[in-house]
Amino acid sequence: MTGRLSIVGIGPGDEGLLTSLARRTLEEATTVVGYRGYLDMLSRLLAGKAALAYDLGQEVERARKAVALACQGERVALVSSGDPGIYGMASPAVEAWLELPGAERPRLEVVPGVPALTACAALLGAPLGHDFAVVSLSDLLTPWDVIARRLEAAAAADFVLVLHNPRSRARTWQLGEARRLLLRHRPPDTPVGVVRGAFRSGQRVAIATLGDLDESVVDMETTLIVGSSRTSARDGLMLTPRGCAGEGRT
Amino acid sequence: MTGRLSIVGIGPGDEGLLTSLARRTLEEATTVVGYRGYLDMLSRLLAGKAALAYDLGQEVERARKAVALACQGERVALVSSGDPGIYGMASPAVEAWLELPGAERPRLEVVPGVPALTACAALLGAPLGHDFAVVSLSDLLTPWDVIARRLEAAAAADFVLVLHNPRSRARTWQLGEARRLLLRHRPPDTPVGVVRGAFRSGQRVAIATLGDLDESVVDMETTLIVGSSRTSARDGLMLTPRGCAGEGRT
Repeated sequence: MTGRLSIVGIGPGDEGLLTSLARRTLEEATTVVGYRGYLDMLSRLLAGKAALAYDLGQEVERARKAVALACQGERVALVSSGDPGIYGMASPAVEAWLELPGAERPRLEVVPGVPALTACAALLGAPLGHDFAVVSLSDLLTPWDVIARRLEAAAAADFVLVLHNPRSRARTWQLGEARRLLLRHRPPDTPVGVVRGAFRSGQRVAIATLGDLDESVVDMETTLIVGSSRTSARDGLMLTPRGCAGEGRT
Repeated sequence: MTGRLSIVGIGPGDEGLLTSLARRTLEEATTVVGYRGYLDMLSRLLAGKAALAYDLGQEVERARKAVALACQGERVALVSSGDPGIYGMASPAVEAWLELPGAERPRLEVVPGVPALTACAALLGAPLGHDFAVVSLSDLLTPWDVIARRLEAAAAADFVLVLHNPRSRARTWQLGEARRLLLRHRPPDTPVGVVRGAFRSGQRVAIATLGDLDESVVDMETTLIVGSSRTSARDGLMLTPRGCAGEGRT
């Protein structure tokens, strides 16, 4: 059994944000498995390789297939955008790998990548300058009351808040409900970074406020970063200072 | 004024986790500013460049100096380990940049990097599979009651919790206090990933429990990842499944 499963974070999309370890792992792979759109982004790197391109969704099927191919001796790269550990392919792939009897498991490794959240933060300046919480607004696999409880807790404890999957064609009310919850704890002029397609063609970066956010511009490819009580917005940048002492830094 | 300030995330330390954009930005820089240890890691890339090496601390001085050099026309790379936005140099540098009159500001960009937290998560399998919160236990700039409130809130709302700066020679009681708070909400067998020096020489990866964690092995270079109620540990890996529905995934 010489197969290997590498779960590879390719970063937000721009080839400049691919790490050399990710590049090398893709080059060494005999088979590449991933969402069609990401494989297209990497087409130059993947020329001549066996590739299994999946549509959106089907993460569990993709993970199982990648594990099965590695069991057959392939060197498999399972591609995940951003970092595989953050709402990416690491979780379903590790789960599928653990389901195998120990003696049948191929080698497994996770190659970390630049996550969407730090790519978005970079375009906004320094919104994550201190403690933060990351919440997905998708209630497809998580009941809304769990999500709502996390939003409330993060807002009450004054975390900067990163919101993934804020809105889709099928999920339209969740973002409004999230804003309503957050506005119980933060003033309407709290800055909100709105980044769509970070480091991809058609990238859009804007800074709104919690009170005035135009929800209609938000879609599945948008990440929102909601400031803490210490976050300010000025001249197109968001800034959360390093400390919370309020007494200046030395 | 043709200067430029690039705040460059170099990832956790292994050159394989440097992005090509970070590498190119370092190559194009006329002056590099950063903590001595990180400049040493990059010595091969920085040969022949003007370099200002700082000791630990002095983040504000480093940021001001980098901004001032960019104002003088230099192309400055201000180096930050991991991602500059997460407890890194983005916050003090953006603050120093915003203090300048608009007409005097050099160009500014943040180059995101692989953060320590995803590098550590990758070595543990898939501990961050769902929503998570990131808290620094350093009370040098943040009062402990703010930190304690965030720990409690994150634990009560069942976030996976990433703990940075958990313990140093001068700060020894904070980790014990954090465990005491977390144990009010999580059972003692909650898995805790303990990663020191991820992707650096001397890297150490272990999985303990919240009840049994040996605090004496934890230092400033250690990151802890505390599981949610859904996180399990098995065969050397931590796994947090994607959803919280508890009904399996489709």
